[in-house]
Amino acid sequence: MVLSNFGWHTSKLNLRIGFNNRKCCGVIIHPRLYSNASKLSFEDHRVIAQRQKLFITDPRSPGSTFFLPHGARIYNRLVDFLKLQYRLQGFEEVMTPMIFKKDLWERSGHWQNYEKEIFRVEGSKKVEENEEEKNSVYGLKPMNCPGHCLLYSHTERSYRDLPLRFADFSPLHRNEASGALSGLTRLRCFHQDDGHIFCEPEQIKSEIKKTLHFIKHVYSLLGMNKLKYFLSTRPEDSIGSLETWKLSEDALKEALNDNEVPWVLNEGDGAFYGPKIDVNVADARGKWHQTATIQLDFHLPQRFQLYYRTNAGGSSTVEENEKMPVLVHRAVFGSLERFMGILIEHINGHWPFWLSPRHAVILPINQSKPVLEFTKKVQKELSGSKQVQLHFAPLNQAYYYVDIQADAQSLGKRLRESRLLNYNYEIVIGEREVQEQVLSVTDRQDRKSTKRMTIDELRRIFEEKLSNYE
Amino acid sequence: MVLSNFGWHTSKLNLRIGFNNRKCCGVIIHPRLYSNASKLSFEDHRVIAQRQKLFITDPRSPGSTFFLPHGARIYNRLVDFLKLQYRLQGFEEVMTPMIFKKDLWERSGHWQNYEKEIFRVEGSKKVEENEEEKNSVYGLKPMNCPGHCLLYSHTERSYRDLPLRFADFSPLHRNEASGALSGLTRLRCFHQDDGHIFCEPEQIKSEIKKTLHFIKHVYSLLGMNKLKYFLSTRPEDSIGSLETWKLSEDALKEALNDNEVPWVLNEGDGAFYGPKIDVNVADARGKWHQTATIQLDFHLPQRFQLYYRTNAGGSSTVEENEKMPVLVHRAVFGSLERFMGILIEHINGHWPFWLSPRHAVILPINQSKPVLEFTKKVQKELSGSKQVQLHFAPLNQAYYYVDIQADAQSLGKRLRESRLLNYNYEIVIGEREVQEQVLSVTDRQDRKSTKRMTIDELRRIFEEKLSNYE
Repeated sequence: MVLSNFGWHTSKLNLRIGFNNRKCCGVIIHPRLYSNASKLSFEDHRVIAQRQKLFITDPRSPGSTFFLPHGARIYNRLVDFLKLQYRLQGFEEVMTPMIFKKDLWERSGHWQNYEKEIFRVEGSKKVEENEEEKNSVYGLKPMNCPGHCLLYSHTERSYRDLPLRFADFSPLHRNEASGALSGLTRLRCFHQDDGHIFCEPEQIKSEIKKTLHFIKHVYSLLGMNKLKYFLSTRPEDSIGSLETWKLSEDALKEALNDNEVPWVLNEGDGAFYGPKIDVNVADARGKWHQTATIQLDFHLPQRFQLYYRTNAGGSSTVEENEKMPVLVHRAVFGSLERFMGILIEHINGHWPFWLSPRHAVILPINQSKPVLEFTKKVQKELSGSKQVQLHFAPLNQAYYYVDIQADAQSLGKRLRESRLLNYNYEIVIGEREVQEQVLSVTDRQDRKSTKRMTIDELRRIFEEKLSNYE
Repeated sequence: MVLSNFGWHTSKLNLRIGFNNRKCCGVIIHPRLYSNASKLSFEDHRVIAQRQKLFITDPRSPGSTFFLPHGARIYNRLVDFLKLQYRLQGFEEVMTPMIFKKDLWERSGHWQNYEKEIFRVEGSKKVEENEEEKNSVYGLKPMNCPGHCLLYSHTERSYRDLPLRFADFSPLHRNEASGALSGLTRLRCFHQDDGHIFCEPEQIKSEIKKTLHFIKHVYSLLGMNKLKYFLSTRPEDSIGSLETWKLSEDALKEALNDNEVPWVLNEGDGAFYGPKIDVNVADARGKWHQTATIQLDFHLPQRFQLYYRTNAGGSSTVEENEKMPVLVHRAVFGSLERFMGILIEHINGHWPFWLSPRHAVILPINQSKPVLEFTKKVQKELSGSKQVQLHFAPLNQAYYYVDIQADAQSLGKRLRESRLLNYNYEIVIGEREVQEQVLSVTDRQDRKSTKRMTIDELRRIFEEKLSNYE
């Protein structure tokens, strides 16, 4: 109950139950991601991440992640992917502050109910000259919703502006006990693919329907086709009119049915401020994870006194002219760090091409000048860095991560070492390749056959894989 | 002297001197950005930003920016641009924690010299079970360098790994007095285009040369061709051997000369930990701004005991086998927020196409069905949302910001309102355009001539502008 005041308490609980939620439902392997999945032995995400150099942690900042370059590539790709889709969905990214004065958290109700999980921030009194500001206490934000409510309230809103959809990828901090911290799954600092929709009650159904549609397809893209939906309805101690609850719950039910997804009713299990849908996802190992969440909120708009001008016209009463929007909290992945942890285990470190931090490795068979020169040319052309104009790489081009492994070790040893890093493609270059200006290319998904192709042909395969999210 | 221990103290000072530094040197207008610059009256960046809905501030978080959707588009484009160029320069983005325990800041020396500008962070004692952790005090990071030193020290480094170049776009916090805060130019929370290069002393020259080259071309791209470089050399109270200072200062001088840029020597004005180059940039209004900075640092590698294995081989002495890298702090824009403030005034709100948050507005002349249908088709095809495959927008496509202005007001009024928002292109659609399937297009840079072209033709212009950073 302590947490029940929070828009994001589900995802908070997500962090809590995390990987303990190990229901065994058989191992489901997505054929597009694996060619030889049955041979794989599954590893912990921390083991894979260490081998692939994705992130580290340090006691100087317990519960925070240091993303190494290759981990940052994956993180950025996930975020870029979402940002791109948001453009089609009418979500607009905003960037909001990290620290807010205590009175904002009191206004939202978080300080009263959640104080011990909020990091307190204070500036030195020596700096501040303003007496009122001298003793300001700030909360390091554990969630974005109060900031988004402020943003909403800064401008007069009309029904024409709704639904208004804000997305935010700010770092969030929640004070977990040091003993509870673990890998990417339980952190003090994380990022959410956070979204808030402010809408009219009549728009709930279509917004939820679109959100559910997006969730289903995103997980399908990642080879997670086994999803369970839980609808939690009005508890006894609810706020808001029974009429609004009825309308909202019906809208959620219809949206679930329209999306043809299997869902379970958790009667009376909603938060006091609104009904919600939680999504559980099975990974390739059969483990279930609570990830996506959609929560309706009748409470925060009230606490922040949010309104919009209706289309009732000037002659109507004030109540008809001004209405309170419904707030929808929603996340597709939830904590991006935690989701990366799930994903690493789900794909067992075999990144699909579009998410991969290592697209190809080029292995010259020797260190002769023509071989090394051709190797560099291939790297330049495949990676996209050939296309530089006016000193700069153009914004509307695709770029790929192509490394060279050319040290003095034997080809076999270099190949084995490269394989530990899970490149999507291995390219071997010898005298014959230089002469014919072709590449010997091995696809990770089919290591038994090596294909010969030109640089352009391989580049076209790269482009196609990126286009098709393969 | 209080600040002299800091890698970033220059950019700190930047924040201080900011827009007060109004030297009048005549108005320089970059012809690529303006067609009718002489007619413009210059406005404060806050006025332009308000009209263009770029950001707001709120007393619940003084000194932090709320980037509105269109402001976030510009911010993201600047960052994406840098990230792309980093790929060619061998910079790797990392993501590091926001809070670090006090002992890290003591290790780096920041706590001793800079304490009052660091926000203190504390977690509730109720959460923590570990006695040692219970009283932990954290600093909300004012800079990234100590985190990057930790990152360096987590792995054994060899000369083969150098130069190692980390980039980081983390939010940074510095406790400025509330009375000093102003617009985007003086903030408590900001982001830097922060980069740290760990290199061998012999690599200093080529690294600085490349950095100067990049700085010059980036500012040129933005129409800022008037740059002044200041080289500050060894002060009396320096640390590090005279030999290292000599080598470094010579390297910086040679790099400046090789780049053929005008530079001034500030003898003895370097920080005690290393020499530096500060770059001053003149905007279109003739105002000078200190933005880019390159600072060598012999001190932090010592405090963090950073080493790399040399190529001296096994038979040599320990000193020959292990050496300390030189640390280079560098930023091209400095604080991204402050730079956006400078840029808004420099271009007077006329965003070049590649940075624009509003590429085109479509104005249908009436609300007839065929006109509105064609309007929507044009928006879809121009913006790029037509290319959706498998439910998703592909990653390797370009997308544009294309709005429709179709409310019931007269065309003239809608056009006037759109112009306040500075769209790069205005597209008018009437019956004739529908019939001929063409667009009447006006380029902001030449409002007197309206051109007729197909959707594909305009889309190709968009692509070309993006490719060429116009």
